[in-house]
Amino acid sequence: MKVRVHVSLKPGVLDPQGRAVHHALEGLGFSGIEDVRVGRLIELDVADGTSDEALDEMCRKLLANTVIENYRIEKAA
Amino acid sequence: MKVRVHVSLKPGVLDPQGRAVHHALEGLGFSGIEDVRVGRLIELDVADGTSDEALDEMCRKLLANTVIENYRIEKAA
Repeated sequence: MKVRVHVSLKPGVLDPQGRAVHHALEGLGFSGIEDVRVGRLIELDVADGTSDEALDEMCRKLLANTVIENYRIEKAA
Repeated sequence: MKVRVHVSLKPGVLDPQGRAVHHALEGLGFSGIEDVRVGRLIELDVADGTSDEALDEMCRKLLANTVIENYRIEKAA
């Protein structure tokens, strides 16, 4: 079973990487960009019987830092 | 306009970060994990009139390394 975990910084948390990308895009001549945030996309290939609870636990224990990051679990077909 | 860019390593490209996460998950006692790949999720807030071509160009020029990475542009509402 393919599972995608989207990890992004919580609103209000400073994102220096996003700011650097924003600045670089403007330097390349792209205009109209208001904000850039950079997060992680983790693609897991897990056994079919893996429970939602186990996936959630993986996120809380390792994949995301829940103090500053939000995560979203998306199951692919 | 909110745009999400999903950047992931092409199949066959070695992913040491994914391997480290895989190993760490097993170390935490999670079983049945077959593969882990780690990519980036870039959330852009751009002007409404931004063309698909401009978004594609941003990805090719800066956001993704097209030699080793694939990208997918997803427009949110």
